[in-house]
Amino acid sequence: MSSPPPWPLEPDPETLERWTVAAAELLRHELPALAFGRADGVTGPRAWADAAALSPPIAEAPLAGGLDGALAALTESARLALNTGGPGYFAYVPGGGLYSAALGALLGDAFNRFTGLAAAAPGFARLEADVLRWLARELGFGAESRGLFTTGGSLANFGAVVSARHHHLGDDGDYRGATLYTSSQAHRCVGKAARLAGIPTAGWREVPTDPALRLDPGRLDDLLRADRAAGRRPFMVVASAGTTNTGTIDPLEAIADVCAAHDVWFHVDAAYGGFFVLCDAGRERLAGVSRADSIAVDPHKGMFLPYGLGALLVRDGQRLRAAHQETAAYLQDLEAEDPLAVPSPSDLGPELSRGFRGLRLWLPLMLHGAGPFRDAAAEKLALARRFREALRGLPIEVPVEPELSVVAFRLPRRAGEALAAWNERNRALLAAINRRQRVFLSSTTLPTQDGDAVTLRLCVLCFRSHAAHVDQCVTDLVAALDELAGALD
Amino acid sequence: MSSPPPWPLEPDPETLERWTVAAAELLRHELPALAFGRADGVTGPRAWADAAALSPPIAEAPLAGGLDGALAALTESARLALNTGGPGYFAYVPGGGLYSAALGALLGDAFNRFTGLAAAAPGFARLEADVLRWLARELGFGAESRGLFTTGGSLANFGAVVSARHHHLGDDGDYRGATLYTSSQAHRCVGKAARLAGIPTAGWREVPTDPALRLDPGRLDDLLRADRAAGRRPFMVVASAGTTNTGTIDPLEAIADVCAAHDVWFHVDAAYGGFFVLCDAGRERLAGVSRADSIAVDPHKGMFLPYGLGALLVRDGQRLRAAHQETAAYLQDLEAEDPLAVPSPSDLGPELSRGFRGLRLWLPLMLHGAGPFRDAAAEKLALARRFREALRGLPIEVPVEPELSVVAFRLPRRAGEALAAWNERNRALLAAINRRQRVFLSSTTLPTQDGDAVTLRLCVLCFRSHAAHVDQCVTDLVAALDELAGALD
Repeated sequence: MSSPPPWPLEPDPETLERWTVAAAELLRHELPALAFGRADGVTGPRAWADAAALSPPIAEAPLAGGLDGALAALTESARLALNTGGPGYFAYVPGGGLYSAALGALLGDAFNRFTGLAAAAPGFARLEADVLRWLARELGFGAESRGLFTTGGSLANFGAVVSARHHHLGDDGDYRGATLYTSSQAHRCVGKAARLAGIPTAGWREVPTDPALRLDPGRLDDLLRADRAAGRRPFMVVASAGTTNTGTIDPLEAIADVCAAHDVWFHVDAAYGGFFVLCDAGRERLAGVSRADSIAVDPHKGMFLPYGLGALLVRDGQRLRAAHQETAAYLQDLEAEDPLAVPSPSDLGPELSRGFRGLRLWLPLMLHGAGPFRDAAAEKLALARRFREALRGLPIEVPVEPELSVVAFRLPRRAGEALAAWNERNRALLAAINRRQRVFLSSTTLPTQDGDAVTLRLCVLCFRSHAAHVDQCVTDLVAALDELAGALD
Repeated sequence: MSSPPPWPLEPDPETLERWTVAAAELLRHELPALAFGRADGVTGPRAWADAAALSPPIAEAPLAGGLDGALAALTESARLALNTGGPGYFAYVPGGGLYSAALGALLGDAFNRFTGLAAAAPGFARLEADVLRWLARELGFGAESRGLFTTGGSLANFGAVVSARHHHLGDDGDYRGATLYTSSQAHRCVGKAARLAGIPTAGWREVPTDPALRLDPGRLDDLLRADRAAGRRPFMVVASAGTTNTGTIDPLEAIADVCAAHDVWFHVDAAYGGFFVLCDAGRERLAGVSRADSIAVDPHKGMFLPYGLGALLVRDGQRLRAAHQETAAYLQDLEAEDPLAVPSPSDLGPELSRGFRGLRLWLPLMLHGAGPFRDAAAEKLALARRFREALRGLPIEVPVEPELSVVAFRLPRRAGEALAAWNERNRALLAAINRRQRVFLSSTTLPTQDGDAVTLRLCVLCFRSHAAHVDQCVTDLVAALDELAGALD
């Protein structure tokens, strides 16, 4: 056959290397500045205007300046964004950004094998299956479990809903009365997953929580009983192992019992919290997760990867397969033919062609080993505890004691204070902390007796966040309290 | 705040650069060998055994050899796979593998901004929106259209089914009688998308095709009329713009008319064929695609990207949004607030967090310009025509004249020959061609009067495939015919 380039669209090997080295040089200089710069990043109207101004047209010819021009545009664009991977970014659920995973993305794309069907790429399929098997073991699942890498928690949760729907309700298109149970603290992607899967909006039941904002298993039992008696079709319960609001873990063992009693699918959305099983303290708190029928976890959260990697694990792997495998022609699985074969992602999920997603987790595990991930999980729990302890000396209340790495806190309500005024004070506190641009916190609302209360939250999950950053947050909180003392008192 | 590393999990800047340079060196040397080596690659039992042998355990400590060890394992694993991006790979739909896209994957992961909500990363959101707008214009959609980058055609088609379902059937969970129309030549991901979305299996209607294997608009009209009269609920027609089997384009204009008359959603699965609109000949053949309600295209096919990028475009963007946006709280869209803002992917698709997917297409467009993509699209059409012409002098029949870059062909049936014997001869021909390992073809079955006939197919879509590779295929076909002459005659 003919030899390599020069051909249009294919750089010759020297150009390929020059491009990559240029990217490496940029990243070497810019990544620290981007990651360790101001904690919030530039957003809002100014960012939109700047983005429009620097957006190069898509033209017939290459961009002026070639790679250098593109890298400059990208670097400027990256500044117009929340600094989601910085050490002072304690908002929402912080993004990871392990560079070893980025290198995996480069290599996976460059090798570009077809990993939709394991038989088309046995080598890569095996590496991906190795990681999934490791993950299943860490979560307490056995050899009959099967897993799938998705792009994140939303599609992992969607796969769980589809599997549960298929198993309990079949595929006849009649989902009237189909009912799914979760708490008000569940991530909003759960409702979206149900909707995409055709579950009627009227079938989303919000199970009441206890004062610690945990789904109440007794109330769940009541609801299931009443709904079944009324002729509805309960089929799935979604518990949270680490809510976004407060990091709360629903009582998994008790919920498992209720699900077993009512024969409904027990899914655990552990997208945020699941990887705390990697350390002893976390594994203890997550006891019961292995009793789930399915679990969603997000390596791009708890394993600090860049955005774009979730995973769904199903205890009885055949149920995942039954919901996703298409035709009878495929029922003669390669697994049966070769004892060394591994499952095909296309039989276990929605995609046929797909990128070599698992490499983004495999490479970090190879380059760092699993040990540092365990240490980091333990460190994050300790950092949240450190922050919570520091609050004890301050005029701050903690409405829910932290279980994982989220600490929700707020100014206490004054006697007779209107809810709106209280919320206003907490919003002012948040703004005063963030204005310093050394840490960036977000807020949420938590239920109280007379309405939703604005509550600040710190979520420490970035691998770059260490004790100094949490201490900085305390310092800035104290300064903000002082600054607002006049206005607040 | 504290300064960069050394921290566990974060390489210091020197290590970061050293890793990247090592990857670049490997790719410089290995990519040509992998891309231009044997056309098929190593698969089957030997590959499974080799994969198991080289699969490193996931240990607590880093892999021995560090990055070098991991790169060695990856390179060996990559050989245990179909060579999907090689110039002689004419099987299925060839994979792309533009290196500029791989570089985009590296940079997107390294910058790691949150691109689920445009407001969180206005700069990157704008670059992604630019590419989608360009794409929509090429396909003939207007300013009111909206698009979404997915991981491939499967999820793009899924998004179309969900949008159509929401628009025509609502979200009450009652999809009894819901009916979707497509031909036997549709990609199998269409049925899967329907199933995931809760459309009953009994509601998948196979519309008969004409002798050229195109969906027959008259028969579609008949079916829609009869189903509606019988109380069924037709809601969607899926046409193919480039079938996988033969590259056939369904009659889009006529189907658009039927869909308009019956008020059903008109979706075009152009995952394989859509990007031929980039050249004049292709745009002419795809006339009518802009009348669709939605279009799925795969940049990892027609724009030669590595696996992992599809796109869904919806003519009336509000319909896409209505099906995917979650809560009333989000209805006050940022678009309305800032004229420079762009849509959020999380409002238009299933994912909330996600990687910066569009960068994998933006960077190639910047580094190469759009021109070479147009040239490449025209070249692929010409190459298929070249192959088809070369067949005229051979004892080969072409059951369907090629419209795009697929050529389906086979040995003619002998008088009185049993179907099984005929199929056996064609399988032998395929094996004899592929055995030479210079080109790799796949086969399919096409309907004939007395059953499905094994038919070979060449699909030329790799950006590395040029005239010499197609000519090599002809040479090997001729040699295979000679070789089998004894057995075949």
